[in-house]
Amino acid sequence: MSAIEESILQMGRQARVAAYRLAQLSSEEKNAILRAMASSIRANAAALMQANDKDLAAGVEKGLSAAMLDRLRLDEARIEAMAAGIDQVATLPDPVGQVMDAWERPSGIRIEQVRVPIGTIGIIYESRPNVTADAAALCFKTGNATILRGGSEAIHSNRAIAAALASAGAPEHAIQLIPFTDRESVAALAQMDKWLDLIIPRGGKGLIETVVSLARMPVIKHYDGICHLFVDQAANLDMAVKLTVDAKTQKCGVCNALETLLVHEAVAAKFLPMVAAALSAKHVELRGCEKTCAIISDCIPATEEDWDTEYLDLILSIKVVSSIDEAIDHINTHGSHHTDTIVTEDQATAERFLRSVDSACVFHNVSNRFADGGEFGFGAEIGISTDKLHARGPMGLEELTTYKYLIRGQGQVRK
Amino acid sequence: MSAIEESILQMGRQARVAAYRLAQLSSEEKNAILRAMASSIRANAAALMQANDKDLAAGVEKGLSAAMLDRLRLDEARIEAMAAGIDQVATLPDPVGQVMDAWERPSGIRIEQVRVPIGTIGIIYESRPNVTADAAALCFKTGNATILRGGSEAIHSNRAIAAALASAGAPEHAIQLIPFTDRESVAALAQMDKWLDLIIPRGGKGLIETVVSLARMPVIKHYDGICHLFVDQAANLDMAVKLTVDAKTQKCGVCNALETLLVHEAVAAKFLPMVAAALSAKHVELRGCEKTCAIISDCIPATEEDWDTEYLDLILSIKVVSSIDEAIDHINTHGSHHTDTIVTEDQATAERFLRSVDSACVFHNVSNRFADGGEFGFGAEIGISTDKLHARGPMGLEELTTYKYLIRGQGQVRK
Repeated sequence: MSAIEESILQMGRQARVAAYRLAQLSSEEKNAILRAMASSIRANAAALMQANDKDLAAGVEKGLSAAMLDRLRLDEARIEAMAAGIDQVATLPDPVGQVMDAWERPSGIRIEQVRVPIGTIGIIYESRPNVTADAAALCFKTGNATILRGGSEAIHSNRAIAAALASAGAPEHAIQLIPFTDRESVAALAQMDKWLDLIIPRGGKGLIETVVSLARMPVIKHYDGICHLFVDQAANLDMAVKLTVDAKTQKCGVCNALETLLVHEAVAAKFLPMVAAALSAKHVELRGCEKTCAIISDCIPATEEDWDTEYLDLILSIKVVSSIDEAIDHINTHGSHHTDTIVTEDQATAERFLRSVDSACVFHNVSNRFADGGEFGFGAEIGISTDKLHARGPMGLEELTTYKYLIRGQGQVRK
Repeated sequence: MSAIEESILQMGRQARVAAYRLAQLSSEEKNAILRAMASSIRANAAALMQANDKDLAAGVEKGLSAAMLDRLRLDEARIEAMAAGIDQVATLPDPVGQVMDAWERPSGIRIEQVRVPIGTIGIIYESRPNVTADAAALCFKTGNATILRGGSEAIHSNRAIAAALASAGAPEHAIQLIPFTDRESVAALAQMDKWLDLIIPRGGKGLIETVVSLARMPVIKHYDGICHLFVDQAANLDMAVKLTVDAKTQKCGVCNALETLLVHEAVAAKFLPMVAAALSAKHVELRGCEKTCAIISDCIPATEEDWDTEYLDLILSIKVVSSIDEAIDHINTHGSHHTDTIVTEDQATAERFLRSVDSACVFHNVSNRFADGGEFGFGAEIGISTDKLHARGPMGLEELTTYKYLIRGQGQVRK
């Protein structure tokens, strides 16, 4: 076993011990520690910025893009936002201990299904250092021990943040940062299913693919957000324009942004010029199917690849479909099962779409951008799962818990 | 790509298409098809026994043990039990379509969390041919398409059962049996995460290990059942004897049977002779720690390995502990997080045990053998999960479903 593997196994064993201590803390105790973490982040702002400067300097040397450097940067406002985020987590209701269900059986035993922490969670992420604080706070709130493995570009910042969090009175090893940033540490983490109950990778597709192929424990992941909006023949076309523009342009680099617009052929001749004008005003590049390009002039012919692409940019693919069935089929085939919308005034058509689209979030007359923990009222969000098991769609605190069954009896036997 | 891989990929694509059709069926339609499946099993009893004869003959030739041959055997009573099991699944409430939660947000959007089928499920299992019918019925009831991969010993029986099920009017490819029984087919199944949403391996540890290390999609598994019973100093000792004997001997080859007895040192001198006498009468071999062997004579010294062993036999390991903390620590370290029991009349001690033991089922004054879908009132059980995510403990129909969020609005945008 290599030194890195040995070191990560040791962190795993420590995390398990910490998890059992965390499971015993009351909500009040956890919230007090969270507030202390927020204070510690604020008190250590200067040290955080100093550490961040080292990362930025190394980033410039490495030739990171301006966008990458911006994601990496910590300033006073961002550090305050990080601390305020932790304070906010402290105010949220604690799902741990909640009785989800309870019933009595003819045998006289009483069964309770109670929410408990998952145990130990590994978070693997890339450049943004605020993930260190966000993920640690959410996992801590739900009584889970966390092992964090950030990217190499942010290593100094991440270490400083983890040190600030660790000095706030949490049980020892409740929050651990892996000091290595090579691939071997990801592999070691992904293999130790005895000590780690769950891995959440947050980052690009390459990282997620690596984790999925290596992991022996459950992985909750967010792959693409190839989101659709279907304009039905019975749509209010003004509303359809408004929703399309919002879903595509309100923020285009996020997973719930619109990537493909599907238009019923019965309204295409009228709707496409309307929406093209509105999108042109927002500088959106349009890539259309043959029928689309025949109707609107300022349109690049789409290739097959476009239907499977998450642009995360001011680009929109457009396809004219002959029926709701073709729309549903296109979404289920080319989408990423994230968030898809129908615009229609016909209730029966809407219900059919809601029932048939196999996505975490299916919307009727609402912008795709509402697929968000905040908009759902979750208070905090660890991510949006495109998986189907355990957590699907926006993940709040509840999704960081599991349950156990407690049974109380009076000496019942099977025989 | 090999012919086997190609063939299994094709089954995966077909399963996905079938899953979308299954998701549209009403409960009544699914129940009618289930009853037709049961009838078809009864009508094909002769063909099933003929196919089973081939497997039995091959098994004798291969030198399978008498126990293995018995598990493989189908007779009229077992075929009737299989059919009756399917009829029973038809009578259970359908979880699909259930509204789990619903709320409205200040933005005016209305969010509904609705139970839906998972989609496509792979079941990998070993010798018992009735799993083919049981698993297919439970998955069908919950609207999931199933790909079954049984063991080579039961291949003729499994084919006959699958053919009988397929002739009952289910959508095409709703239930598919893989015709290959080599390892390559397991690997191919475990890799196609685009077409398969979940794998459930049912069988020995070797099979489960293989699936866990290969699978790219979620796996719900049942590893060991190393179950404990802790006799506290405040236990009713007569009750403790009764529960120990039931948990160990009522059926010893099952996962919720007792494997290790922990006894508080304050009652060891009185309790151990009582329980040893009762267990001797049932021919249970006792393997004790040093303190145990000093108290009871008919006791083999336990080795460290005993604490980590699932005997599935009339053998019990016994350890004297000095406190409830030592008991909890032993269980969390050596147990398999399945089902663990405390016997005590002290409520505070009981609550501490229930809170601190990290197992799917934690019992107070109830035999471990109650960790069972039937005893829980689930009506049917696909297995008992020792995982923590999605499903923990006895898995009923609900655990074969997931959810999606439906949002209905009136043209809401984020901007």
